[in-house]
Amino acid sequence: MGHLRWIPLLAMIVAVAALAQQQPQAPRPGISVPPLGDGPFVFDTGEQHKIRIVVVTKGLSHPWSLAFLPDGNMLISERAGRLRIFRNGVLEPNPVAGLPEVRAQGLAGLMDLALHPRFSENKLVYFTYHKPNPAPNLPANSPGVITLARGRWDGNALADVKDIFSAIPDANASRIAFGKDGMIYMSVGIADPPNAARAQDPNDLAGKVLRLKDDGTVPQDNPFAGRSGYRPEIFTMGHRNPLGLIVSPENGAIWENEDGPNGGDEINILQAGKNYGWPVVSNGRFYAGPRVTEKPWQEGMEQPLVFWVPSIAISGMTFYTGDRFPNWKGNVFVGAMRQGEIPGTGHLQRVVFNEKTEEIRREPMLTELHQRIRDVRQGPDGLLYLLTEENQAALLRIEPEK
Amino acid sequence: MGHLRWIPLLAMIVAVAALAQQQPQAPRPGISVPPLGDGPFVFDTGEQHKIRIVVVTKGLSHPWSLAFLPDGNMLISERAGRLRIFRNGVLEPNPVAGLPEVRAQGLAGLMDLALHPRFSENKLVYFTYHKPNPAPNLPANSPGVITLARGRWDGNALADVKDIFSAIPDANASRIAFGKDGMIYMSVGIADPPNAARAQDPNDLAGKVLRLKDDGTVPQDNPFAGRSGYRPEIFTMGHRNPLGLIVSPENGAIWENEDGPNGGDEINILQAGKNYGWPVVSNGRFYAGPRVTEKPWQEGMEQPLVFWVPSIAISGMTFYTGDRFPNWKGNVFVGAMRQGEIPGTGHLQRVVFNEKTEEIRREPMLTELHQRIRDVRQGPDGLLYLLTEENQAALLRIEPEK
Repeated sequence: MGHLRWIPLLAMIVAVAALAQQQPQAPRPGISVPPLGDGPFVFDTGEQHKIRIVVVTKGLSHPWSLAFLPDGNMLISERAGRLRIFRNGVLEPNPVAGLPEVRAQGLAGLMDLALHPRFSENKLVYFTYHKPNPAPNLPANSPGVITLARGRWDGNALADVKDIFSAIPDANASRIAFGKDGMIYMSVGIADPPNAARAQDPNDLAGKVLRLKDDGTVPQDNPFAGRSGYRPEIFTMGHRNPLGLIVSPENGAIWENEDGPNGGDEINILQAGKNYGWPVVSNGRFYAGPRVTEKPWQEGMEQPLVFWVPSIAISGMTFYTGDRFPNWKGNVFVGAMRQGEIPGTGHLQRVVFNEKTEEIRREPMLTELHQRIRDVRQGPDGLLYLLTEENQAALLRIEPEK
Repeated sequence: MGHLRWIPLLAMIVAVAALAQQQPQAPRPGISVPPLGDGPFVFDTGEQHKIRIVVVTKGLSHPWSLAFLPDGNMLISERAGRLRIFRNGVLEPNPVAGLPEVRAQGLAGLMDLALHPRFSENKLVYFTYHKPNPAPNLPANSPGVITLARGRWDGNALADVKDIFSAIPDANASRIAFGKDGMIYMSVGIADPPNAARAQDPNDLAGKVLRLKDDGTVPQDNPFAGRSGYRPEIFTMGHRNPLGLIVSPENGAIWENEDGPNGGDEINILQAGKNYGWPVVSNGRFYAGPRVTEKPWQEGMEQPLVFWVPSIAISGMTFYTGDRFPNWKGNVFVGAMRQGEIPGTGHLQRVVFNEKTEEIRREPMLTELHQRIRDVRQGPDGLLYLLTEENQAALLRIEPEK
């Protein structure tokens, strides 16, 4: 194992070179991260043991989501407002045409992608994005209006793109997923106080998961439809910043994860009309130190299925249902941007449940790569695909190592 | 970074060789861990950046604790019942003479070490251990009677060793620490149900932290002294398995950490007479999956200062007060035996507090070494010393890398 000592040294040379261009005085909380190599990388992991990480492509910028087309090609959203296509093993240099103007800044921009359940017939691609806000006198850092849109995939571009639903401005990121009921579930996050209280306001869409028809209108069987003082789009409330939204392949339940503050990242199984507690109940602390709430429990508010203390800065999520990693079947994978508020500690996590959906294990994986993982998806080939969150980002694939 | 791919390959060769002697069919949850190399290892870390890990000595067996003598030499307890001395840079092959018979099995055996605050005058070394239980008909796996003893260090051996306090049998591991009040604080752990309820029984010493005089008798100002139905030795109650017990250099407060089940490892600042909740309130799950408690909060029970979900299988703990790592001053370090119930993920954690003792960051460190860390202590040289928990265990030192 004598080689082990050289890795950090190499990392250090890169880090020192990078630091030479910065102010060296102030101690920075994070660890120095070398650029991602070309791979492949081989790691030992729990249950499945040897895996290989292949760098499928570099050249992405802050990708947010990916969707597999039936032909095996892949659409990838980039936060700045570009939709990319990875076709026949190549990331095409020009973005897909047809996207609307996107207001990209901070964690706002082009967000999630989802194909219509009958995509093979109607070719509809759904996406969420932040739209420039037409209202006058908004603050310069206003993130824009979070909007659900769809367009028709013509094989090269999106045609007939139109907005089908707009939420309020000043709300955070968004994920979307089609349920087995044919409805589209859409998350709308919210920041810390003073705005966080909006997550508990039933007349406000921030801090909620919404349930919409595939044309953006409100289904009549929504939990608060027709109830005075409640927005009828709401499916669940009391969320902070949902960054993963997936459908259980087993029973169709909607699984949501959300980014907590310092501590309190969580996975919830959503039940219509329930309140998931933010910011009244939280296991986390504000970044400056104080607890969000002294009591991490309250009658009438749901406890998370899984939560993380310290935070992992949770991101995209998937169930694993394939055959290529038989010992991982039924596991949930989530991306992690960092751990414990220390930059440079991004990785992937695997969560193992028993037959009653009670957690029994959690594995931090790919920690050696120090990559922030924005999204994780299962491919039609039964392999796992990851997007790194960087200015120079990569698409990674996890394969069994023979 | 092309070298990175070779490390796991090397690990794999070792792992495969080890696996060849086992049944290959059953998937094991853990990752394969190669033997610790000879080092040194250089890593980048938060705030302090480049550090070097030096393997000071190998050749230890399941060490539990270490204590620095005023001459800079070091006593190390091994669970099997041996007290070792590391003198003038060498681990002496023969154990220190004078120790009593120890009942070692599972997590029982020779435990913690502490020097009397006036050691330079009285040469007294205190230690805890499991004593063979004289009672007849005990089950074969009974851990013995957890006992506090002391002996006089004559420079080569412990003389005049005598037991000064015995707790009940069937209790878990123990740590000891001398408070600034001159009293000795001693933890007595307890297992999961059906025994866990003993942690809430004020007439039982299991699941408690005790406060004793330096001769093992009970101070009259203990919180429950003279109260009917309460053991007078109790300082705090409702603990699961305390594995770290230290004194704040700033204000003399007793900081305790305890190993939770799956989730729920915690650090508490102990206040006389308070109840820390086990097993009535916990953030963890039993290993099979169910939550320990549906409500992680209850009136009259203390919330932890810091807790971990998932568990890190927390172990020894220290404050860092030295000058060799100026950016780590005031940080707390804890050993971790694994993360998320995945064997092979042992490491060290660093916890950063603000001036109000509110946590603001936590860093997993030394993850690349995959070592279970049983204890961490600050040396008189201002460096950090770690004991790994293995059959072939090592003493490691963390130094700044120039």
